[in-house]
Amino acid sequence: MSRLRVLGFALSLDGFGAGPNQSLENPLGERGPELMQWFFPTRFWRAMQGQDGGETGVDNEIAERSMQGIGAYILGRNMFGPIRGPWPDDRWKGWWGDEPPYHAPTFVLTHHARAPEPMAGGTTFHFVTEGIDAALERAKAAAGGLDVRVGGGAATVRQYLQARLVDDLHLVVSPVLLGQGESLMQGLDLRALGYACTRTVAGERATHVFIERVA
Amino acid sequence: MSRLRVLGFALSLDGFGAGPNQSLENPLGERGPELMQWFFPTRFWRAMQGQDGGETGVDNEIAERSMQGIGAYILGRNMFGPIRGPWPDDRWKGWWGDEPPYHAPTFVLTHHARAPEPMAGGTTFHFVTEGIDAALERAKAAAGGLDVRVGGGAATVRQYLQARLVDDLHLVVSPVLLGQGESLMQGLDLRALGYACTRTVAGERATHVFIERVA
Repeated sequence: MSRLRVLGFALSLDGFGAGPNQSLENPLGERGPELMQWFFPTRFWRAMQGQDGGETGVDNEIAERSMQGIGAYILGRNMFGPIRGPWPDDRWKGWWGDEPPYHAPTFVLTHHARAPEPMAGGTTFHFVTEGIDAALERAKAAAGGLDVRVGGGAATVRQYLQARLVDDLHLVVSPVLLGQGESLMQGLDLRALGYACTRTVAGERATHVFIERVA
Repeated sequence: MSRLRVLGFALSLDGFGAGPNQSLENPLGERGPELMQWFFPTRFWRAMQGQDGGETGVDNEIAERSMQGIGAYILGRNMFGPIRGPWPDDRWKGWWGDEPPYHAPTFVLTHHARAPEPMAGGTTFHFVTEGIDAALERAKAAAGGLDVRVGGGAATVRQYLQARLVDDLHLVVSPVLLGQGESLMQGLDLRALGYACTRTVAGERATHVFIERVA
């Protein structure tokens, strides 16, 4: 049974998934890149950049696992392009250059219809204007029995959690205070929605929190 | 130099320091006791209850340290007595029975003037009606050069943080989702106030987060 998963969602100690004032220059918002400091030293990240070496501890192992068994992705509008900027212009093909890191069908939630965009390396961007249920249905059909991963951002993850469609949620809590930004959990009663924390693992540079729908 | 410290402040994964609907029956709010599950197995807690045994790992060590070097305490109104209930009646002497665990002068923020209440074991409750600055001044004077600890609750800790009077803040984040309750950080921009996380330590049953005023 194909699951809907949120994996490696970065969170600050004060609960923000991105900093304030997201823009073309700051896709993760101001100070948002601090949330990714746990990731950059890993062997997994370095290999994605075509670099040798890197750390091979707990953080790396969990990062590697977060890309396995995934047959399709769902992205919110702001994960694909900036709030202010060239998107939804059809010439904008995402943040990642010619070869995005998904290597699978990737469904982008948007209000702007657009033809599918095949990229190098197996990623094809599909643009879904009919909402989160339609995106999930299409992603599951495309995943070939594997799991579907919601890649973010916070607003999209919140919508899927609120609808109780997420099966499991892996948070990476970094030792960082952002002060402002996009909150993941504010106003969202995950407990009432049937979620519980099933495991916490200390990484080298962040704490990994595993939450599952249990009811 | 005497510091103002918040130590062992329990927090859920979704950022709540207490559950909803605090009452005489539920001083920590509904489901709030789940935040203390890390504490009850420790040798330190058991010794406080006059019991032998208990665990002696990281959680216990940090709990023991949180009571050392403290010369006076500050408590919010709800830490001393329930929102709905007998307090501020003078016959209410706190949650703890005849011998409270403070063993030091303890300043309770309240709008109701009341004579000091000396208890067994060295705790004397002083009732401060002039606000947080007055309470801090009196507590520092009473602490004999040792540190002052804010015992809670969340609203009181927030007031001292907002005023940049807290020197360091130790959070104990439990692997629990409360869903609702009293948020510690919501609307409080700790980063802009000059705070940063300086250390994270994995305990057996909770994650210890150390935050200091660095600017």
